[in-house]
Amino acid sequence: MALLVQKYGGTSVGSFERIEAVADQIVRTVNLGHQVVVVLSAMAGETNRLLGLASKVSAKPSARELDVLVSSGEQISVALMALALQKRGIQGISLLGSQVSIHTDDHHGRAEITEVQCQRIERCLTLGQVPIIAGFQGINGAGDITTLGRGGSDTTAVAVAASIRADECQIFTDVEGVYTTDPRVEPHARKMDCITFEEMLELSSLGAKVLQIRSVEFAGKHRVPLRVLSSFQAGEGTLIRYDNQGQSEGITGIAFNRNEVAITLSGLEETTTTVAEVFAPLNEAKIPVDMLVQSAAVNDRVELTFTLPQSDLAVAKSLLDPVVERFSGQPLVAKENMCKVSVVGAGLPQHSELTQQVLEVLAEEGIHVHLLASAEIKLSVAIEEKYLELAVRSLHSAFKLSENV
Amino acid sequence: MALLVQKYGGTSVGSFERIEAVADQIVRTVNLGHQVVVVLSAMAGETNRLLGLASKVSAKPSARELDVLVSSGEQISVALMALALQKRGIQGISLLGSQVSIHTDDHHGRAEITEVQCQRIERCLTLGQVPIIAGFQGINGAGDITTLGRGGSDTTAVAVAASIRADECQIFTDVEGVYTTDPRVEPHARKMDCITFEEMLELSSLGAKVLQIRSVEFAGKHRVPLRVLSSFQAGEGTLIRYDNQGQSEGITGIAFNRNEVAITLSGLEETTTTVAEVFAPLNEAKIPVDMLVQSAAVNDRVELTFTLPQSDLAVAKSLLDPVVERFSGQPLVAKENMCKVSVVGAGLPQHSELTQQVLEVLAEEGIHVHLLASAEIKLSVAIEEKYLELAVRSLHSAFKLSENV
Repeated sequence: MALLVQKYGGTSVGSFERIEAVADQIVRTVNLGHQVVVVLSAMAGETNRLLGLASKVSAKPSARELDVLVSSGEQISVALMALALQKRGIQGISLLGSQVSIHTDDHHGRAEITEVQCQRIERCLTLGQVPIIAGFQGINGAGDITTLGRGGSDTTAVAVAASIRADECQIFTDVEGVYTTDPRVEPHARKMDCITFEEMLELSSLGAKVLQIRSVEFAGKHRVPLRVLSSFQAGEGTLIRYDNQGQSEGITGIAFNRNEVAITLSGLEETTTTVAEVFAPLNEAKIPVDMLVQSAAVNDRVELTFTLPQSDLAVAKSLLDPVVERFSGQPLVAKENMCKVSVVGAGLPQHSELTQQVLEVLAEEGIHVHLLASAEIKLSVAIEEKYLELAVRSLHSAFKLSENV
Repeated sequence: MALLVQKYGGTSVGSFERIEAVADQIVRTVNLGHQVVVVLSAMAGETNRLLGLASKVSAKPSARELDVLVSSGEQISVALMALALQKRGIQGISLLGSQVSIHTDDHHGRAEITEVQCQRIERCLTLGQVPIIAGFQGINGAGDITTLGRGGSDTTAVAVAASIRADECQIFTDVEGVYTTDPRVEPHARKMDCITFEEMLELSSLGAKVLQIRSVEFAGKHRVPLRVLSSFQAGEGTLIRYDNQGQSEGITGIAFNRNEVAITLSGLEETTTTVAEVFAPLNEAKIPVDMLVQSAAVNDRVELTFTLPQSDLAVAKSLLDPVVERFSGQPLVAKENMCKVSVVGAGLPQHSELTQQVLEVLAEEGIHVHLLASAEIKLSVAIEEKYLELAVRSLHSAFKLSENV
């Protein structure tokens, strides 16, 4: 008998048929002798419907009231799921964020969980009930409703699992697990049985889109065993582990980010604080800068190149222009329509060897690498976006990722 | 400057246009220098929509989860209203039942308010905010969401008004005030400027349907000045008072109940406990028995006649059959298709005189009176339902209720 947290996303509870199917699955888990705590998102489309209501009333709705509004979406799905379980003779009991309680900071719309109280959940379990917890929502110190931002239900599930020391936190989604890369790009992508926390973090942050990065970080912090699996297909999914057992040799997967821009700042005066001063305003605006490369100094002048999301370009330019003015006077050069492809693996070979392999594979396909950056367990290249699919498939094939190791 | 509680019902916030209109009205009240606390129902149709969702999942949904589900309706309307006020430069702030807090007993779906805490509301007012409180909902001792039953938002408004000692509790509805009778039956019905609490109680309980009876009782208990007025038409509405100022002479109004049944139990053995034992099971099932008449004993046998709603007939029969068996053996006689018409007035003339007048008016129209019962400020007759409109109009005209007193 295990204590399991099961999280079902919006598409998993997106219709009455899906709610019934999820209820059946929870019953099966209970009947296997497990204790189950359920975390739910709003029914697919509901959050957008509610945001639509707000936009009809106000062009600039306040974040506090938006949270009151959209949190009603999970309130509906947890009540319906409790009813569906009760119909099956299981004592489902809905719990809102405020009832658990799930405490957060004050950032409406993007709050971070500060504490999940376990008492109410544990009392339910003791009574043989199956708590159905509204994901995505919490309360701040003033007792006001907050939401964690899109995808926050994953974080709720992990935080609940950490709080009650669950044996496993199971994230049910519309994919069968974590793949070696996005199967929509590489049909031969392979579902992995196991992956390490560090690998998952890189795959998640780099665009695998299976799990929200914050939830993975949260899981890592509390060492919550996470499993990603399909709510539509039977299967074991992918287990995210904190030990090295089952760790793959070499390369685990290929992640990528579309819509990147490579920015080059040339002729920068070289001082000890140049880089820091260039990036301070970007950090402050929370613009995710990646793949920073600094050229060796020539005549005390250096060149900085880095990538950031296309969507942040306008803001980044307005922040960088005064800095550039001060340090160089040469205009900022932005190369658009780029993408980032990353080879990830806890057991990556020597960087020099790997770099050579990656460059050879891409060169063979005539793909020019604009930037290359390596970190502990990943190696990223910035290439033109039109080559993205070709690059991913070539690397996936070259490193034989379709084959079970 | 007055402290006002304004309650707007479902039709008053039933569309985006209506929400904007109510927001305008709140702004006007604020601009007159008043402090305003708003109580809202769910948008018209929303509660039924939510109940429809539940019925798709379960034929016998649990009351606890229904409350979680339907309380989301007010959550949406208060958030939208707060946004509409903020757009107008007024600091609207939504508060759910749990945030106020509005404490209730444990009866999900028909909970009674036990306490309304005033601290959070008063803090909002001190900050110059306009609290927008979700009506119809509260929390029980376990912190679970409860609802007060249909129309409960009126009770919320009155309870809030009592808690913060408001100068007036204004119930905005789709009628212009309390009428001498239902204007759909008698087009010459007159809107009253003032009415006493006791009169309102009788008119409300007898079917005037302007205010929920529980909210009127609650107002009376705490002596909250209540005003009923239209959210669609400007006007002073009707003020419900606790003193005798403005009390009308003679008859105030004509109330009625459709779909009644007159039940007769004949040949009952007369003991000191007969009546009590007959009615015990009906009271227990909360079936509202009215107009009880006991005939004088003949050969130690009595006859009991009384009315109850048609909808309760089947249950009442099943409860009464064993009792009848025991006390008489004569079968229960139910006369269906009856209605109850009541003449109400705090300053009713002598009962004998009034009775004579009422019977004369009805006799003139050929209406047979099956039962007649009088109480402190009302006199009720049970007649065949097909005569209802005729009876109401004849009495309304005979007592000159269209004329201003």
